[in-house]
Amino acid sequence: MGSSRVRVAVDAMGGDHAPAEIVGGAIKAQQELDVEILLVGDPQQIEACLAQHPTAPKMEIVPAEGVIEMTEDPVPALRKKPKASINVAMKLVKQGKADAVVSAGHSGAAMAAALLRLGRLPGIDRPAIGAVFPTMVQGQPVLVLDVGANVDCRPKYLEQFALMGTVYAQYVLGSEQPRVGLLNIGEEPNKGNELAIQTHELLQANERIPFTGNCEGRDVLSGDFDVVVCDGFAGNILLKFAEAVGGILLQILKEELPRGKRGKLGVTVLKHNLRRIRSRVDHAEHGGALLLGVAGVCIIGHGSSDAETMCSAVRSAQEAVENQVLDRIKESLPALSPS
Amino acid sequence: MGSSRVRVAVDAMGGDHAPAEIVGGAIKAQQELDVEILLVGDPQQIEACLAQHPTAPKMEIVPAEGVIEMTEDPVPALRKKPKASINVAMKLVKQGKADAVVSAGHSGAAMAAALLRLGRLPGIDRPAIGAVFPTMVQGQPVLVLDVGANVDCRPKYLEQFALMGTVYAQYVLGSEQPRVGLLNIGEEPNKGNELAIQTHELLQANERIPFTGNCEGRDVLSGDFDVVVCDGFAGNILLKFAEAVGGILLQILKEELPRGKRGKLGVTVLKHNLRRIRSRVDHAEHGGALLLGVAGVCIIGHGSSDAETMCSAVRSAQEAVENQVLDRIKESLPALSPS
Repeated sequence: MGSSRVRVAVDAMGGDHAPAEIVGGAIKAQQELDVEILLVGDPQQIEACLAQHPTAPKMEIVPAEGVIEMTEDPVPALRKKPKASINVAMKLVKQGKADAVVSAGHSGAAMAAALLRLGRLPGIDRPAIGAVFPTMVQGQPVLVLDVGANVDCRPKYLEQFALMGTVYAQYVLGSEQPRVGLLNIGEEPNKGNELAIQTHELLQANERIPFTGNCEGRDVLSGDFDVVVCDGFAGNILLKFAEAVGGILLQILKEELPRGKRGKLGVTVLKHNLRRIRSRVDHAEHGGALLLGVAGVCIIGHGSSDAETMCSAVRSAQEAVENQVLDRIKESLPALSPS
Repeated sequence: MGSSRVRVAVDAMGGDHAPAEIVGGAIKAQQELDVEILLVGDPQQIEACLAQHPTAPKMEIVPAEGVIEMTEDPVPALRKKPKASINVAMKLVKQGKADAVVSAGHSGAAMAAALLRLGRLPGIDRPAIGAVFPTMVQGQPVLVLDVGANVDCRPKYLEQFALMGTVYAQYVLGSEQPRVGLLNIGEEPNKGNELAIQTHELLQANERIPFTGNCEGRDVLSGDFDVVVCDGFAGNILLKFAEAVGGILLQILKEELPRGKRGKLGVTVLKHNLRRIRSRVDHAEHGGALLLGVAGVCIIGHGSSDAETMCSAVRSAQEAVENQVLDRIKESLPALSPS
């Protein structure tokens, strides 16, 4: 321990642009945030990346061997490669040497490694991946979970997601009175598929969950909800669609704005405002997905993470640790329906 | 019969802005398209709307009494109100007095009325609602189905949707070799929930369906697919999310572009280009959802339809009739797996 700074184990080998961008992001985080980074991976490769940043602060390197490839089946691969970077990073948390893990590698492997090395929280059947989206209302994000960990869900899983999401919204996103919605295709309680109808009843009955009703596709980004629960199939479709749509809009702007002489002039004049638009639409500034329900703080970065995104992911980890989100979730678990 | 023009029965009483906007759309359609409109609803109200358009062409009014309200349970309401506008419109198709129905009213009621009055096509277990989205590639839309009729689906329903979608893409959207995708959360055949995994096998095995693999959320608007099948829960979430996102993006542009002196100048200079952007992003120009699998051509307009949208919906109906999409679907049905 010694230092009171949050210590984040960064999986330097995971992600499409690893290790260069990951190390770059770690440096940025160490410079900008009050955190201590542990870089987990192949020391030689990490050293080579660090050498590109001569003014970078000193960072501890924790040696690991190999990485779980995107094409590998997570559980057998994790067993076959006990020294893989994600395994080593999780062990650092288990041993109390780090407070959180950040990885932009194989998300299924990160989830499986967290389950194998850290285990589930008591009362949680399935951990969920939560993603934070910006909404129409600036400064008021919405947490959507699950966005991909559990494709076939039971109602009680969604109740667990709702409870964990409530705590996260309260203590990390700063919603004093979070409004929890159930992703559904209509407003009425009897709308939706079997899962939604049964989940609606559970959420309605749980006093610890500030359930405000169904959230239709059109309401997700309205700012009317702080937490939206759904199964990992619907959530993943939504997440990936949302990510793509931002890119499509920017593409349409790029194609249509500069058309003609007036277009070229207008674009020059609006340069600054267009940059603001890009940053509001672009997903890159938002910091990774959270793994909720395991006995440790884990942030899963996008596979295509660059240094900027990685730094945001480290910030998410720091916020979760500083706000003691894990303890808060543990305290709330007795409110769950019996399994 | 007599005339070779397509005859479209328009439910004048259905929709948030009925009957004024619906009648307005019908007039626009009759003026711009080579169709014959039958206005179904309360004659007095329709006459009053027509009186607002003194130069409008003459249109036949088919009297109906009452409308299915948004809050009503469709099937009992349809039985209780046999003369409701949607019932009368469907009967016109059944009796051969109209070639298609267009309604912006209660979509569940339109679907139920089609089932009650027209029936299903042989071999189709469940009709689907299909929505056409613009993609990244201009002039190359994608048909997503089901977007809300069937919240809990079996694999064979999705196979049926895929076959109907293929025919629609070929004969109405003009895709010579449609590429059919299965909405899913990963590219590999073993990814997804139970429904997706089993549907993947059926689609792969059906030679009549040009299945090209899984379509992730990020791929829906890529232009890589002409048809995307999914259950009505995921599809409805996607549809409503997409509709809302267009509005949010326009809102961001509206907020950010005119900021500062340079912003105001730039917006003035770019006026024309911004209008092009609005029309590419805005959903209003796209013409209603299709009800596929019933024994008649039915187009379901958005509840908030205005005259513009209604006119597009009539155009969709016209295209479906002129391209004999119903006969083409019937011809293709023997290609389905046995029930």
